[in-house]
Amino acid sequence: MALFVQKFGGTSVADATRMREVANQVKHTRARGDDVVLVVSAMGKETDQLLRLADEVSHTQPGREMDMLITAGERKSIALMCMALHDMGIPADSFTGSQAGFLTDTNHRNAKILEVNPYRIRETVDAGRVAVVAGAQGVSTDNNVTFLGRGGSDTTAVALAHGLGADACELFTDVSGVFTTDPRVCPTARKIPRISFDELLEMTAVGCPKPVMRSVEVARAYQVPLHVRSAFTWEPGTWVVEQEPDMEKAIISAVVPDTSQAKVTVVHVPDKPGVAANLFRLLANDNVNVDMIVQNVSEAGHTDISFTVPREQLATSDEVTSRYASEIGADTVSTDDSIGRVSVVGAGMASNPGVAATMFETLSNNGINIEMISTSAIRISCVVAEAQIDAATVALHDAFELDRG
Amino acid sequence: MALFVQKFGGTSVADATRMREVANQVKHTRARGDDVVLVVSAMGKETDQLLRLADEVSHTQPGREMDMLITAGERKSIALMCMALHDMGIPADSFTGSQAGFLTDTNHRNAKILEVNPYRIRETVDAGRVAVVAGAQGVSTDNNVTFLGRGGSDTTAVALAHGLGADACELFTDVSGVFTTDPRVCPTARKIPRISFDELLEMTAVGCPKPVMRSVEVARAYQVPLHVRSAFTWEPGTWVVEQEPDMEKAIISAVVPDTSQAKVTVVHVPDKPGVAANLFRLLANDNVNVDMIVQNVSEAGHTDISFTVPREQLATSDEVTSRYASEIGADTVSTDDSIGRVSVVGAGMASNPGVAATMFETLSNNGINIEMISTSAIRISCVVAEAQIDAATVALHDAFELDRG
Repeated sequence: MALFVQKFGGTSVADATRMREVANQVKHTRARGDDVVLVVSAMGKETDQLLRLADEVSHTQPGREMDMLITAGERKSIALMCMALHDMGIPADSFTGSQAGFLTDTNHRNAKILEVNPYRIRETVDAGRVAVVAGAQGVSTDNNVTFLGRGGSDTTAVALAHGLGADACELFTDVSGVFTTDPRVCPTARKIPRISFDELLEMTAVGCPKPVMRSVEVARAYQVPLHVRSAFTWEPGTWVVEQEPDMEKAIISAVVPDTSQAKVTVVHVPDKPGVAANLFRLLANDNVNVDMIVQNVSEAGHTDISFTVPREQLATSDEVTSRYASEIGADTVSTDDSIGRVSVVGAGMASNPGVAATMFETLSNNGINIEMISTSAIRISCVVAEAQIDAATVALHDAFELDRG
Repeated sequence: MALFVQKFGGTSVADATRMREVANQVKHTRARGDDVVLVVSAMGKETDQLLRLADEVSHTQPGREMDMLITAGERKSIALMCMALHDMGIPADSFTGSQAGFLTDTNHRNAKILEVNPYRIRETVDAGRVAVVAGAQGVSTDNNVTFLGRGGSDTTAVALAHGLGADACELFTDVSGVFTTDPRVCPTARKIPRISFDELLEMTAVGCPKPVMRSVEVARAYQVPLHVRSAFTWEPGTWVVEQEPDMEKAIISAVVPDTSQAKVTVVHVPDKPGVAANLFRLLANDNVNVDMIVQNVSEAGHTDISFTVPREQLATSDEVTSRYASEIGADTVSTDDSIGRVSVVGAGMASNPGVAATMFETLSNNGINIEMISTSAIRISCVVAEAQIDAATVALHDAFELDRG
């Protein structure tokens, strides 16, 4: 008899019919003799509707109040989900983040979990009941309601699985697992049956949209086995586990395309110590998430600095960078919001030289120019023109034979 | 400098525009130098929508889950109301029932307040901020979310005013005060400037819809001055206070029509001790709220018993009563769901004989037959045909000269 934490996102609890399907899924899991703790998100587009409502009411939206507002969404879904379970004869109780024992910091709208003390959830499971927990919420150290941010339900589920010592955390989603690349871009993309925490973390860091990166970080830190699977079918999805001895020795596991970033370049920066540090400190102060950073010496005493930021932060980044550039006497700041980033990720890469060369050759042979490069031990990312991102993805998926399993 | 607890119902916070009007009202109260604690209900028809959603999802609706669901409505309105206040430069923080210190019993969907410990509200007021409290909710002794029932926001406001030692509790509603009778029925109805707790309590007990009776009970028990006033205009409403030495010496304060009741009659009941007691115990066991009870001796050894119940409980009452009637050998049970009840209420009645006579004569002169009568120290109620309730109301309002102020 095992304990599963099963998380269902907004699409999976969007209406009465979908809720009954989730209840049915729980019924089958229990029929096997296993225990279930459910984590659910707000119904369908509810969170967006609440945000629109806030926009209608006020320009001033304090984080504390936004969290009070947004977390109302998950309350509705946990209560309704419990009723759907009761209707099938399954005893169930709902719990808010606070009731489930999620203690967070005071950073409203994007709170971090400090501790999970799920003693009420444990009691509920021990009593043979299903605990239904509100995703993405908790209570702060100063006793206010907090929201963990969009997609926070995945993190709730993984942290809860750890807190309960569950056998696995199953993330039911609208994709049937983790794929070798985006199947919409590359029809030969395959579902990956098993992948390591490290690889999935790299993939989510460079644009793989599901599961949410934070949840993978938590799963990796506490070695919580994750099962990413479809909420619509019964087929097995992708198991995310500690590096496996019997894992297939693919060098590369996946090709990850991403078009969410934009590029900023500062040209002809005086090459003095502290210049880059100051720039990125200023950007950090404005909460800009700088991702790739590349610096080239262009001529003696001067350098060019390029970096990528999320597109929605481009305006802020441009402003901060331009101000600083004029202070330090740099030439110009240019921005480009039509870039794409393609990454190859694979734990086998570290011990297999030549992956970078294959990647660059493949892009070159397909007439795709590389604007920036960055690497980690198990990832190589190239920035290319956005218009070429799909072609780059397909070409790399072929070159690394990811269609062959 | 005074402290006011101001309660706004669902209509008053139905949308962004209405919320901004409430914020404006708060702004004016603070401009006078007074402090404000707001209590708000769920927006517009939100509670009805949540109930519909529950019906769509499940036939099984455990009270614990219904309360979790319904209380989501007030959470939205408190958060949005705080944002509207912030937008006007008024610092404000929202509080759920639990956060505001409302401890209740475990009777879900209709919980009773056991204690109010509003220390966080007090701190907020002392810091010069507006506390916005969710109406009709609390946390139970076993640590679950509870709902105080429909209309529970009035009770929240009054209990909070008592807990804070506020100078007054202002109930902003869609009527501009308490009237001498229903102005829709009787165009000469006048707003009552001041009324005693006792009188208003009697009025709400016999059908005056606002404020909610429970809130008047609490206000009366703790002597919390109430101000019932319009959410749409600035005019003063009705002050509900301890019996006033300078109160105008009207014998009768109001005529209250009510068409929410139905009548049950058991004919030819053996007149033995315990028969009536047993019947009303059985009805109480089925949660039927019996109101007026009249018993007449019809012939030696037998009696007729009539009583009124809410119309929605007529089917249950009929069933319970018919079963008991056949057990004890009573003749028949008849029911009538087209009755009306008209009551005259007035603290001056106790020391003024002849009120009953005037009432009965007035009805008789207008061709209105009285089916049942019940009285208290400050009230006389007559059951008449529903079709004659408006005529009865107008005639009594005239007879007691309530149009003259």
